[in-house]
Amino acid sequence: MSDNPNALTAWAALRRIEAGTLTAEALMQACQARIAEREPEVGAFIHLDPEAARAAVRTASGIGPLRGLPVAAKDLIDTADMPTAYGSSIYEGNQPTEDAAVVARTRSVGGVVIGKTVTTEFAWRRPGKTRNPHNLAHTPGGSSSGSAAAVADCMVPLAFGTQTAGSVIRPAAYCGVVGFKPTFGTYDRAGVKELSGYFDTVGTFARAVEDIALFDGALRGATPPRLDTFDAAPPRLAIHVPFADRIDEDGGAALERAREAAQAAGASVAGLVDWTRFEAMDPVHATIMTAEAGRALAWEYDNAYDKLSDFYRETIAAGRAIDDDAYFAAMAEADVFRNEAAARLDGIDAILTVPASGEAPEGLEFTGDPLFNKVWTLLRWPCVTIPAGTGGRGLPVGVQIVTGYGEDARALAVAAWLERALVDRGATAV
Amino acid sequence: MSDNPNALTAWAALRRIEAGTLTAEALMQACQARIAEREPEVGAFIHLDPEAARAAVRTASGIGPLRGLPVAAKDLIDTADMPTAYGSSIYEGNQPTEDAAVVARTRSVGGVVIGKTVTTEFAWRRPGKTRNPHNLAHTPGGSSSGSAAAVADCMVPLAFGTQTAGSVIRPAAYCGVVGFKPTFGTYDRAGVKELSGYFDTVGTFARAVEDIALFDGALRGATPPRLDTFDAAPPRLAIHVPFADRIDEDGGAALERAREAAQAAGASVAGLVDWTRFEAMDPVHATIMTAEAGRALAWEYDNAYDKLSDFYRETIAAGRAIDDDAYFAAMAEADVFRNEAAARLDGIDAILTVPASGEAPEGLEFTGDPLFNKVWTLLRWPCVTIPAGTGGRGLPVGVQIVTGYGEDARALAVAAWLERALVDRGATAV
Repeated sequence: MSDNPNALTAWAALRRIEAGTLTAEALMQACQARIAEREPEVGAFIHLDPEAARAAVRTASGIGPLRGLPVAAKDLIDTADMPTAYGSSIYEGNQPTEDAAVVARTRSVGGVVIGKTVTTEFAWRRPGKTRNPHNLAHTPGGSSSGSAAAVADCMVPLAFGTQTAGSVIRPAAYCGVVGFKPTFGTYDRAGVKELSGYFDTVGTFARAVEDIALFDGALRGATPPRLDTFDAAPPRLAIHVPFADRIDEDGGAALERAREAAQAAGASVAGLVDWTRFEAMDPVHATIMTAEAGRALAWEYDNAYDKLSDFYRETIAAGRAIDDDAYFAAMAEADVFRNEAAARLDGIDAILTVPASGEAPEGLEFTGDPLFNKVWTLLRWPCVTIPAGTGGRGLPVGVQIVTGYGEDARALAVAAWLERALVDRGATAV
Repeated sequence: MSDNPNALTAWAALRRIEAGTLTAEALMQACQARIAEREPEVGAFIHLDPEAARAAVRTASGIGPLRGLPVAAKDLIDTADMPTAYGSSIYEGNQPTEDAAVVARTRSVGGVVIGKTVTTEFAWRRPGKTRNPHNLAHTPGGSSSGSAAAVADCMVPLAFGTQTAGSVIRPAAYCGVVGFKPTFGTYDRAGVKELSGYFDTVGTFARAVEDIALFDGALRGATPPRLDTFDAAPPRLAIHVPFADRIDEDGGAALERAREAAQAAGASVAGLVDWTRFEAMDPVHATIMTAEAGRALAWEYDNAYDKLSDFYRETIAAGRAIDDDAYFAAMAEADVFRNEAAARLDGIDAILTVPASGEAPEGLEFTGDPLFNKVWTLLRWPCVTIPAGTGGRGLPVGVQIVTGYGEDARALAVAAWLERALVDRGATAV
């Protein structure tokens, strides 16, 4: 598989395209062939239009920096030329008038939207059809299930997801790819179905940190962030292990491998002690997200109740029952915590932590626990997960890098540095 | 006019409906007759469907608490049964699939959407056709131009607007009605066209504070906030006059009338001194709003450039040119300022300030300066403007009440108290 263009990282593909040894058309065809072969088992997509994508490549290949690279978009994100159903039968066949801002931006920098990927129902609990490409009996995680699986299975080099609790970082870890939840607000949410305005964040998937940086630069209309910041002076890391009793052996071993690799490569790694407020913020996240889901899905609750899952019927009712005093108090507490928490980063370059409890759970019914993502999402800080080997059942496990508000470039530079350190240490494949 | 049902406040109309001396159908007909008479001059609406509204009243009149009351919705807010054009020819004839969350909520509590009101282009600079009903040669303010004018002209008792800089409070003041911008996030934004995710706030218009409270309770599914909190012990107010050299004689006189009325009714009124940081936050607001508009309107810029005003062509380009470091630094600064600013409210119940520089400017080209709204919007604190007499040209002028994050009930109670004090003092009509 690794000789096929679809298995190349975005950067590697672009290098070949510039060297004249690959065309954007051939890359698109290879990705589409991979989808045709694997989609019946993996089920990453909810909508594909191969002919339109091939036609789009002809124009897009002349537009930089993405030059016709295929990009998959979670079906929570509006597209003017493809139906967008938000993971709900309520919106079957729904055709948005315009592209979401991130899709418009992607097209304007040469990306080609190859298709819409499976999301859980309105980006929360009820799973879609997607399976973990590493073991079809396991969940790929969610809610950005299809995007994580499509990138992991080499169907596409780049994809969009969204995270409200743990919907980018967790599926990325489960599928063994790189996931990036930037600082809240980085990529605009116009045209993204709202679940929780306080948390919803657009993020990205790729198979290498440098691809995330490439995509990030393109989306921001800027030079990609430099990833060599720590080449000369390795980063100062601190490990934070919240909810330690909920992390399994595989999750703990991944963190240990990352620590060893980082130290072997010259990083300093300290522990982050006594941050008990961190765990106490988990219910604050739950209050805000539930209250906001109850508000955001008012039309669906009132007009399409019979097409909502039991989960949403209960959650929306619960959200409506949260009174405004509790809701505002939770948001005010989150604001204060975010300001206080900044001091935790004094003297370090990044936090190293787990992105999930361990391997992807067996079965497709439960997309896994976002416990290790919710408080970081509440902090609105950038998070990157990178692969860190496999667990006891041969499924991928990851580690997560977190930096402070707006320090996205640093998060990516530390992640790129650690990605290489893990490869050098033999903890992950090249 | 004042004997016509359309001139009643929402509360007064509901009392008559309960007493059996008015029906919701008759109220709707009176509002529609008023619209038919005045709309050619005022131009508050962009879409009306009188028959559908009359049909809807029959069912809605049985649903509480709004019992068929007509509500106007700014055309920035999606409606499943009416086109929604966001003030832009790009979206002429655009028919959303679903109702925005606030519209769904309104319908579920017995409100009837009577029509869509004029918004400036994507809720910023370029005005629509609406005129100030008090003097047709003057602007009604913006961006919620039609909603403010429709309520002021007794076409409808309640209306929705949105505020990103000063788009609820300022037109309410110019049109002589009550405007309410609640704490950020109070009314969900799902289905509201995004301009700036950090600021966009859904708000409401009415002709009395008690109507705002009624609508607020209905939207939140709660008992309306109590407005008699300060009946026994008058509020402790502090006056804040930012950008003092930009306030004209009429604006200053309104504030003076409010101060006198409040003191005569027993309130303590202190000055708020040395808050220089407040004025320094104005450019921070501008940076965030411009950067986000540049991101949110990416699809329009890339695909419908020729239908954008010159203002947006320039603003979107300027927004895209703001780099992420500046954008994130501005948001972080706003977060810190909001936390610091809370201490300003120690020992007082509310801040009393101006909602605008004075009367509505002459002409329709410029909807007025949001200078006296932007920093309050940045603080995400609740703001209420109430009428406080007229200025030198006979146009309405208002005063603004502001309280802390989540203290919406208190803001409304102080506003209701001051509204009565101004009437008692003879500063405003009943």
